Amino acid sequence: MAVSEGADYAPAPMPQPVVEPGEFVFAAMHLDHGHIGGMTQGLLGAGGTLKWVYDPQPERAAAFAEKFPQVKVAASEEEVLADPAVHLVAAAAVPADRAALGIRVMEAGKDYFTDKTPLTTLDQLAAAKDAVERTGKKYAVYYSERIHVEAAVLAGQFIDRGAIGEVIQVMGMGPHRIGDPTTRPDWFYERSRYGGILTDIGSHNFEQMLAFTGSTDAEILSSAIGNFGHPAYPELDDFGDAHIALSSGASGYVRVDWFTPPGLRTWGDGRTFILGTEGYIELRKYIDVTTDNGGGQVLLVDGEGEHRINASGQVGYPFFGDLILDVLHRTENAMTQAHAFKAAELAVRAQEQARVLAAAPPA
Amino acid sequence: MAVSEGADYAPAPMPQPVVEPGEFVFAAMHLDHGHIGGMTQGLLGAGGTLKWVYDPQPERAAAFAEKFPQVKVAASEEEVLADPAVHLVAAAAVPADRAALGIRVMEAGKDYFTDKTPLTTLDQLAAAKDAVERTGKKYAVYYSERIHVEAAVLAGQFIDRGAIGEVIQVMGMGPHRIGDPTTRPDWFYERSRYGGILTDIGSHNFEQMLAFTGSTDAEILSSAIGNFGHPAYPELDDFGDAHIALSSGASGYVRVDWFTPPGLRTWGDGRTFILGTEGYIELRKYIDVTTDNGGGQVLLVDGEGEHRINASGQVGYPFFGDLILDVLHRTENAMTQAHAFKAAELAVRAQEQARVLAAAPPA
Repeated sequence: MAVSEGADYAPAPMPQPVVEPGEFVFAAMHLDHGHIGGMTQGLLGAGGTLKWVYDPQPERAAAFAEKFPQVKVAASEEEVLADPAVHLVAAAAVPADRAALGIRVMEAGKDYFTDKTPLTTLDQLAAAKDAVERTGKKYAVYYSERIHVEAAVLAGQFIDRGAIGEVIQVMGMGPHRIGDPTTRPDWFYERSRYGGILTDIGSHNFEQMLAFTGSTDAEILSSAIGNFGHPAYPELDDFGDAHIALSSGASGYVRVDWFTPPGLRTWGDGRTFILGTEGYIELRKYIDVTTDNGGGQVLLVDGEGEHRINASGQVGYPFFGDLILDVLHRTENAMTQAHAFKAAELAVRAQEQARVLAAAPPA
Repeated sequence: MAVSEGADYAPAPMPQPVVEPGEFVFAAMHLDHGHIGGMTQGLLGAGGTLKWVYDPQPERAAAFAEKFPQVKVAASEEEVLADPAVHLVAAAAVPADRAALGIRVMEAGKDYFTDKTPLTTLDQLAAAKDAVERTGKKYAVYYSERIHVEAAVLAGQFIDRGAIGEVIQVMGMGPHRIGDPTTRPDWFYERSRYGGILTDIGSHNFEQMLAFTGSTDAEILSSAIGNFGHPAYPELDDFGDAHIALSSGASGYVRVDWFTPPGLRTWGDGRTFILGTEGYIELRKYIDVTTDNGGGQVLLVDGEGEHRINASGQVGYPFFGDLILDVLHRTENAMTQAHAFKAAELAVRAQEQARVLAAAPPA
């Protein structure tokens, strides 16, 4: 029932490439997190030209070059940064190293596009802000759970159209599968390097809470972390949550964990609930559990009825084209610098003040 | 897919009546909240004998007697309390009046069974505890969103069997429909009488967080209330939420509101998410939005797969028979007194310390 396909519930037109080949040139480097693949695909899909790849581990650069055969493998970070053709460097370094890398990139006169979390401490945040100010360059962030998820993009369109009135609350669940823990790199278990669960995977949801409420700031009312199931890795937070008051007047709550059970058919049952004065939205991002509906499910209940819209393949990812044009035109349509930094700041503050629920050691 | 009906996912046997007619006699009085109907049905279903009804408004008692024709309409509260045949008095008074009524009932030598929230202030809580101590009587509470919802009863059975390992987090959403605001009684809009949203409808979820985690206590980490959509009723909290740390080590979050949109086919899309170390449970209590599955949906994801169990008509409500036997045998199998009071205490504390998010006046 109530599977709406009317114009009121239709997505905006699919985004198209925004530049011709060679107009926007980017490089990929520091491939520690697999997100670099999605970041690269997103920029390519919007018309970007991938020129270089670099990684301190040559086999990682080689694997990347197999997936993207048009790329040249650079011998060093410096070789990439010295190339005047490069507009932007995309990178997915170890979280604690992302700020220092970004500062090097911006000081070389290029814009930076980093995997989330963009940084892990308030000191890094201050240094990154200084560098942005000093260089005039961009420190953009791949908050993939909104910008690279069609259900989330469509939710943003609905909210902008006023489909649920004023947004009162955003609740996000970001469960993740840890898989075989021995296949994870060392930094995954060292809090000083991955930053803690609220800083790392939690940052996605701080970004979504700001974006979906239209807020520029928020206060952490409370937060908590725990290690409930991984005693062999005492610095791993396998659970975290936070309750925040947003500058729009709305409330926000995020819950993240590493407990996706083996029986789930995907890596995590990511959900978002957005409560408005005139309706609410639920996102079943990656799976509609116990059904064969697939992910990308947007459920919207409003004054008219209950509506289900499958966003998969219907919405696309306008962020990437917007980012390319922002780089070329020095605009901020994809995401403002202030927003990208504020989400990270909230994630770090929530982590720093978190109540330790289980046997996790102090941060 | 994955609609499990195996023995591992079967409910316990349906509860049966626990007494013969006349063995357990109860009365209903103070019918301010419609929950009195469910409370009465529950006790009747478990074998209870309904003898009396009383309400200060004779037309309300008459309407009740039409639904339950076996009942005698009493001329006064005293007439009911003076009847030595009555074991228990069920009541759904205005929230702020529930404690004083309970104390009168217990001092008359009867057990008390009140609609949630059982009280609205810490002073009332202290007085109620004193009266329980002094009289040896019970002050039982109808936390209907767990004890009178088959999906929630089944979730409790699964947790007790260890189906999801150790419970790490419980998240509850209790949206409600306000309907035509002018049809609500005055007390609904007076904070000193209804107690505030976290105290009133929030109490259901504080009870569930304690029950599903097996906790005896909790600390309110943060809480918030707001009036986002009802400026004509400035003392109405139309939104509330709270983040708590439970004594089991688990985290809890509750979100309640009065914003169920007109397009939803029922009064509220009540959900509960219970995260464990070995799996998770989602309850879609009253509706599975955009589908015709009906409510009562228990979704369980564990090491084996994704399972959906429709609890409707399969589980029943063991609380009522347990309560009757607790009254007759002076046991505490339905719910301990400490648990019933602790849930109310948490609800009141969350309300008292709540951040005011919107234009709601101070409590």
